[in-house]
Parts: sequence; C-alpha cells; structure tokens
Amino acid sequence: MEKSKRFQKGMEVIRKYEDKSENPAYSITFESLMDLDPELENYIVEFAFGDIYSREGLSHEKKTLITISSLVTQGLEPQLRLHINTGLTIGITPKEIVDAIIHLLPYAGFPRVLNALNVAKAVFVEREVNVKEE
Amino acid sequence: MEKSKRFQKGMEVIRKYEDKSENPAYSITFESLMDLDPELENYIVEFAFGDIYSREGLSHEKKTLITISSLVTQGLEPQLRLHINTGLTIGITPKEIVDAIIHLLPYAGFPRVLNALNVAKAVFVEREVNVKEE
Amino acid sequence: MEKSKRFQKGMEVIRKYEDKSENPAYSITFESLMDLDPELENYIVEFAFGDIYSREGLSHEKKTLITISSLVTQGLEPQLRLHINTGLTIGITPKEIVDAIIHLLPYAGFPRVLNALNVAKAVFVEREVNVKEE
Amino acid sequence: MEKSKRFQKGMEVIRKYEDKSENPAYSITFESLMDLDPELENYIVEFAFGDIYSREGLSHEKKTLITISSLVTQGLEPQLRLHINTGLTIGITPKEIVDAIIHLLPYAGFPRVLNALNVAKAVFVEREVNVKEE
Amino acid sequence: MEKSKRFQKGMEVIRKYEDKSENPAYSITFESLMDLDPELENYIVEFAFGDIYSREGLSHEKKTLITISSLVTQGLEPQLRLHINTGLTIGITPKEIVDAIIHLLPYAGFPRVLNALNVAKAVFVEREVNVKEE
Amino acid sequence: MEKSKRFQKGMEVIRKYEDKSENPAYSITFESLMDLDPELENYIVEFAFGDIYSREGLSHEKKTLITISSLVTQGLEPQLRLHINTGLTIGITPKEIVDAIIHLLPYAGFPRVLNALNVAKAVFVEREVNVKEE
Repeated sequence: MEKSKRFQKGMEVIRKYEDKSENPAYSITFESLMDLDPELENYIVEFAFGDIYSREGLSHEKKTLITISSLVTQGLEPQLRLHINTGLTIGITPKEIVDAIIHLLPYAGFPRVLNALNVAKAVFVEREVNVKEE
Repeated sequence: MEKSKRFQKGMEVIRKYEDKSENPAYSITFESLMDLDPELENYIVEFAFGDIYSREGLSHEKKTLITISSLVTQGLEPQLRLHINTGLTIGITPKEIVDAIIHLLPYAGFPRVLNALNVAKAVFVEREVNVKEE
Repeated sequence: MEKSKRFQKGMEVIRKYEDKSENPAYSITFESLMDLDPELENYIVEFAFGDIYSREGLSHEKKTLITISSLVTQGLEPQLRLHINTGLTIGITPKEIVDAIIHLLPYAGFPRVLNALNVAKAVFVEREVNVKEE
Repeated sequence: MEKSKRFQKGMEVIRKYEDKSENPAYSITFESLMDLDPELENYIVEFAFGDIYSREGLSHEKKTLITISSLVTQGLEPQLRLHINTGLTIGITPKEIVDAIIHLLPYAGFPRVLNALNVAKAVFVEREVNVKEE
Repeated sequence: MEKSKRFQKGMEVIRKYEDKSENPAYSITFESLMDLDPELENYIVEFAFGDIYSREGLSHEKKTLITISSLVTQGLEPQLRLHINTGLTIGITPKEIVDAIIHLLPYAGFPRVLNALNVAKAVFVEREVNVKEE
Repeated sequence: MEKSKRFQKGMEVIRKYEDKSENPAYSITFESLMDLDPELENYIVEFAFGDIYSREGLSHEKKTLITISSLVTQGLEPQLRLHINTGLTIGITPKEIVDAIIHLLPYAGFPRVLNALNVAKAVFVEREVNVKEE
C-alpha cells in the first residue's frame, strides 16, 4: 500500500535523527513490534514524527531536550537511550545532554536523574564520545 | 545572618526570571511557606537556583523549556504557572511555550498536554500576550 | 480548509460519544484551547479519535473502560469527568463505571480510587443518574 | 448486617486517629462515597485499617510518616490533608510533619514538597497549631 | 491454620485465571515473597482476589482489560506479564490485548505503550500464540 | 580543591550509613557517574546528605523509612536497593523494612509493594539476614 504524505514527512524526520553508520537507533526500540498491528508503524511515523516532530517553531535540538526531559521524569530508560542516541546524531553535545539531565535534579529528584545519567554514560561509552574532551 | 555566596548567586538568577512590574512570580508559590522551616528558603535559593539554575552550559531559554517539560509530564500545575510566567519574562515567546507543550503529546499523553495548555492560556490572558499576534 | 478523512472519521466517533442534549462533553475540556495552535484540534480529532477511537476490535464500552482506567491511575480528574460523561452517553451504566474504578483498588491504591469515585459521584448527581436504582 | 471482626478492628484504629472534637477527619474524604457501592466502606475499614493499619511492628507515628511520604510523592493532596490531620491527632508534632516532607526534597523533587507544605500549612492554620512554638 | 472464606473465594478466582499446563502464572510474581510476612499471602488472595476480583458486575475479560490498562500506564512490566498471561488463559485473544494496549497511546503516551507491547510480544512468543493467525 | 563544610557534613552522614565491610553501598549507585560532571558529587554529598540527611529533628531510622516509602511509591528499584542496605546498616531490622513496605499496600498498590519486597528479599539474601529469625 502506498504510504501517506504524513508518513513520508515522518520518515524524513526520522532519517535526520538516524545514525547512518553503526547505530540503527530508530529500529532498536520498535521495529520488532510492527507485526503486532498493521497500523502501529503508521501511528508512530505519521503522528509522532510526521505531525509532531516535523512541526516548525522549535529547533531539533530543543525538541530533543524537551523529549529527554519528559523521559527522565518518567524513568523511561529504553526510550531515553534512543533519544540520547538521536540527540548526539543531530549534533547535541554529550555535555549538553548531561547538563539537561542534571538541570532536572530539583524537578524530578536525584534518583531519576542518576538513573538517566547511567543510561547516558552507557550510550557515550558505546559511541566512544566523551563529556570531558569538549 | 549573612547569606551565603550560593544564596546571592541564586538570588541573581531569580531576579533575571522575575517580572519587575506586575507579576511577582517568584513569591507566588513559596514565600508564604518560609516560616515553616528556617532552612527552606536556603534550599530553594541556594540549591535550585544558586547551584542548578546558575550552571553554565545551557541557555536560560533551554533551562526553562526543560523545566516546563518535566512539570507538564508530572501535571504540576502551580509550578507550571510559575515557570511559564518566568519563561515569558526571560523572552521565550508564547508560541514557543505552546510548541514545547504540544511537542510532549507523544510522550506525556493528550490529557497532561491539554491541562498544561489550559494553564498556559490562563497565564497568557493574565499577561495580555497572544500566541497569534507573533 | 477542507478537513481530512481522518478528521471526518474522528468527528463521527466524537458524535457517538457526545450527549446531544444538555451535556456538551466534547467541548468542555478543550474547545477553548484551539486558538493556541492551528493544528491542535486536528491532532485530537484525527489521531485520538480518527485513528485510535475508530479502530475496530474493541467495543466502545471496552474502549471507555480502558480509558477510564488509565485516567484513574494518573489522577487526571478533568479528563475522567469527560470520559465518565461520554461513557454514560454510549450506554455504560453508572454501576459499571463504579465497578471499574473500584476494581483498580489493588493496582492504583485507595486514594486514586476514592478521588475518582468523587468525580464519578459529581457526574452522576449532575446527570441525575443513580447507581442504586439499576 | 453484623460487621466482621476485621471491620471492628479497623474502626478501633480509625477512632485512635480521629480527632474527637472539631476535626471529623475520617468522614471528610470518603463518607459521602459510601452509597456508590455497598462494599466500599468494608474495603477501606477492613483492609486499609483492620488489616494494614492495625498490624503490629511499626508505631502509629512511623505508619503515618510512611503514609505521608507516599502521598507527598504522588501529589495526593486531599489524602495528605487527612493524614496530616490524623498525624497531629495521634501526637506527631507539626515540626516532625514539616521535617518529613522536607526530607523528601531529593526524592520527590521541590514542586511536590512545596505543594505538600502548602497543604500542611493550611492544616496547621485550621487547627491553630504552630511549628515555631514547639 | 484454617483459611478464611475470603481466602477460599480468592483461590477460586486465581484458579480460573491460572494456566494448568506450563504457565504457573500465579506463582511467578509473588510466591517466593510469602516467607517475608505471614499475612502477605492473605492480603493478596483475600483482598485482591477474594474481595475485588470476585466481585460481580464486570466480566473477567473486562476486569483483566482494566487491570492491564492500569499496569501499562504505570509501566509495571512484571505484573503486566502476569496479567497478559492470565488474560490469555481466560480467553482474551492476543489481538484484543494488543488493541487494548494500543488504545492507550493518547492517554499513556507512546513509550509506555511500546514497552507494554514488548512485554505482550514476549508472552505471545512464549505461549506460541499469534496475533495475525486470528 | 578543598571541600566545603557542607561536603564534610554530608560525608559524615554517608559514613554512618555505609557498611564498612562487604557492602560498599554508597559507591554502588553513583560513583561511576562522577566523571560526567565536576559538580555532580557535590550536589549529592552537599545537598542530599550535607543539607537534608544531616538535619536534626528526625531519627536516622525515620529518615530512612520516609526515603524507602518514596522510592517504593515511584518504583525506583536501584535506589531502593541502596536504601534498604543502608537502613540495615544503621540498625533498622529486616522486619521493620518489610513492615514499612507492606504498610504501603493501600497507598502505592500491590504491584509496587510486591516489586519492592522482591528487592528487599534480594538484599536480605545477599547480607544473609533473615526476617523470621528476629
């Protein structure tokens, strides 16, 4: 079946966030779930990316920081891993990611922040990037 | 008693965020609670503002968007009201605030986002600012 | 501008849930927010109703009970009020709504359940329906 | 119908926590909901109070502090109001209640703690007790 | 010690939900915890199952969908695994479980829903059932 | 760089909670994260321990029970593991920890409580302590 314009728009956004080389970030979290429902991929690509992520008005950097903030607050570690990865891909520095997570100490509490930094550190090690080298 | 350097640093940040004219945003939420504990004001001013908000590395705009994102996610309406107010004071446009809240639709769900937009709208009405006019 | 097919599909679902007489449930929560963003109404009507609520596979009754369960768990009272209203409109009995909320005692805890029953009771009083009379 | 032993045990606990004079704390939150379901009162009195609150092993003071901590963390203000009230009735001092809420700053974040202190302050004003006078 | 009527009633419900063959769903989550407290098993069997799950008024299917909805919303994966298992045992189809989880996209957000579908998929693989075959 | 008085005060509290022998509880959760940000350790030691944990007014036992209660409610298992460990070190009995967690059944729901008891049991096994022997 031909894909909708919203789907194509969503895939364009996803490709911007996707690391072409070794980190197939997009596929990690949800590709294996697509056979559970024929519409599921459409909801994600069309709504989350085609409608929401492709809105103008906020830079991709700000969108990712806002997303990360919500995920830290909810303790959603698999998604946090994905969005820290895509954040690095679109050019957010490791230091900015750490700064954003630490900024949440007064709002989400120390445990959520420390658990999120744990996820960030694992991503940094995997991608061989370093906060200090900047 | 003389206030610490961290307290002074915290107060500097707070003043930047504070609307000098008619919106005493800082005082709204917590001033009336200070007589419950002699250290409470210090924790807020020294830690939340002196330590965290005065960190370098993220612009005030990004810090506020990150804060708003966590508050929307938790449904913390009194604080959301405060930080939407302070966000406007430091120069975030109403449209950016609306964009940031709407960006959370896939992460925090429709009800949290709609309730937060309700708070934003009330602040905009109060301050007589308008999303559309931009 | 002409509305999309998904919008039309969404509006059909909304009309089923809407009380034609005295309870304009649909409008209560979000109509006043639509001027904040030109796309907001589309996201709600197209995605939440056109895509998700119009899916086949679950009866409207089950969809509403599932929705109510998530709202009780999150303590989202304005939306709970809306969906208890629409639930009554599509034919769920007050007793089933009470039974569904009480079923969450072991999962969401007593406070969330009691606060939700408070909302349910207010809706029942407003609509002059009665759990006992059934 | 005759009430069960667990119900009687639960009512004994409730009476200990209940202010005999002007603060009918027990009735505030849930008495008006009892006509929604014939078993609801039993679940509360028998399970929450007859089974759980009447367990030996923790003092009533510790039980109340543990309860308050969970309610602060969830932002459950109506129940917080009830349990701060009952805490005062069984002899916890206003200062201990404030200390317990402030202790949650690193775990539940500043907004939840400040909102809870707001509730505590309202209860103290109502009961004309004072943190400072101790 | 002889077990109470509520315990017996609870065990009857549990047996209905229990897969007799290879999936000892009841025991998975909590059997190993029972030696921590002599009353713990009673609380679960008597209250959660004897009082709540054995209530009349909602079908077992609806009770399970309501339970699953609350667990998805809280991200409680070990319990989700249990209740998806017991749901299949009492006759809910894999497709209905997927439909119920997907229905929560607008209320619990995409990450909670995708993580829950991940759990559902693992249960389906283990039980060798298939959404598509229906 | 010389450490602040608040840091020293914080380290004194941490040492009280730290098991000198085989359970390096303090280091488990966050030591490996300290190289992500030069101030992170200060925030934890100075604010969480130097400011909050070293407050007078509540016994260490009560502070730990309040902390555990918040962590159970949020399902924060890595931190729960840490604070159950430190609780045992400062002299809270395994039975009191179990009693505190079970007390949360009506407030945080069965799943959160059972998952927390699972963590408690793992800690007890590791430290070879036993609830029943008391």
